[in-house]
Amino acid sequence: MGVYLETMSNEEEPAGPYGYSEQKQAYLRRLKRAEGQVRGIARMVEEDKYCIDILTQMAAVNKALHAVSIGLLEDHIAHCVVNAAHESQSSGNPEIVSGKVSEATAAISRLLRS
Amino acid sequence: MGVYLETMSNEEEPAGPYGYSEQKQAYLRRLKRAEGQVRGIARMVEEDKYCIDILTQMAAVNKALHAVSIGLLEDHIAHCVVNAAHESQSSGNPEIVSGKVSEATAAISRLLRS
Amino acid sequence: MGVYLETMSNEEEPAGPYGYSEQKQAYLRRLKRAEGQVRGIARMVEEDKYCIDILTQMAAVNKALHAVSIGLLEDHIAHCVVNAAHESQSSGNPEIVSGKVSEATAAISRLLRS
Amino acid sequence: MGVYLETMSNEEEPAGPYGYSEQKQAYLRRLKRAEGQVRGIARMVEEDKYCIDILTQMAAVNKALHAVSIGLLEDHIAHCVVNAAHESQSSGNPEIVSGKVSEATAAISRLLRS
Repeated sequence: MGVYLETMSNEEEPAGPYGYSEQKQAYLRRLKRAEGQVRGIARMVEEDKYCIDILTQMAAVNKALHAVSIGLLEDHIAHCVVNAAHESQSSGNPEIVSGKVSEATAAISRLLRS
Repeated sequence: MGVYLETMSNEEEPAGPYGYSEQKQAYLRRLKRAEGQVRGIARMVEEDKYCIDILTQMAAVNKALHAVSIGLLEDHIAHCVVNAAHESQSSGNPEIVSGKVSEATAAISRLLRS
Repeated sequence: MGVYLETMSNEEEPAGPYGYSEQKQAYLRRLKRAEGQVRGIARMVEEDKYCIDILTQMAAVNKALHAVSIGLLEDHIAHCVVNAAHESQSSGNPEIVSGKVSEATAAISRLLRS
Repeated sequence: MGVYLETMSNEEEPAGPYGYSEQKQAYLRRLKRAEGQVRGIARMVEEDKYCIDILTQMAAVNKALHAVSIGLLEDHIAHCVVNAAHESQSSGNPEIVSGKVSEATAAISRLLRS
């Protein structure tokens, strides 16, 4: 009956087990592009391009990967954490949601420091 | 009877309106220390200390502030998002939780880029 | 005869031993403001302000401290590294400059991960 | 007559125009690996892997790319900045080195915010 965003049905592409499944194609496109950017950086190194120009490209690929990470995190919170909140409520077991929250926080912390 | 962490009652210090209230004293201590570190950095600049030593202290204060940010984010997700998930479920209005999730993600994104 | 930028004289405030000395007053003002921002964050926690608003302030103080760090790094490279380059050249000892470069790089690396 | 580290000759692989040329093979290997990691992340998304596991891989690739960036920056400072310092000294034109320093600082700033 659909309390969540992700159940806004998407006929052609059935939602996978995790929340990001709907945006899957968008993530795949962005990752494909980031992969190409990393390959482009390697080519710049190969061709002895100016270090500062290489670093500019590096910042661009970091930004692109960060955007994907932020998207995945949002999906994780919107789906895995929210679903766990419901399960915790229906089961009376608070650890279901607290486990998911800790996992999300640990992932955020790794991203901040990476 | 309290399915969530935050309702694990805390006699002396009643939980405030937001989830971080329980860890309030810990956050205040850490922020006080970070404030002292920033003051220490100003003193180092004042006394013409070596730039690299000042930068080392800067990295330490960044780390300390990040730890507080991560803690606040964890509290936000564990309380505000989780409570909103329950409200969304009981009211049938998915926007309650999706609004909180977007807010959290925007905050994470600002931290990653700050 | 002025090999460095900073020798664009500054009558009132004689340059200290390190390159950042000239911008000292600007750094001190910014650090004072950052200190105030950290204190403001503590007050927000004290008054149970909304976590997301606190995180927004946190991103602001991170940004302010980063600006100071970048400034100090620039000064370090422009003065300590450049002076070391001259000393390496006049003394014929390449380690003088390579040590300064390693120090700078280690500081950048700590900042990126802090 | 060798004022710099990098002039510690390297018979097989003549240094290219920029300082990183000597570590070129190492950078290329690392970038190739990072490219593979990004492709692996795309595969995880494709196969609906758990979001947190994907984020863990994302932090790993960020770390790998950061290591390359830091290396390039170190090379830039050790070579381009240091060479510019010498040119500034021999020509009496401080702008040669100050331009390189500004460029390096701008690159660091972009990395910190990316």
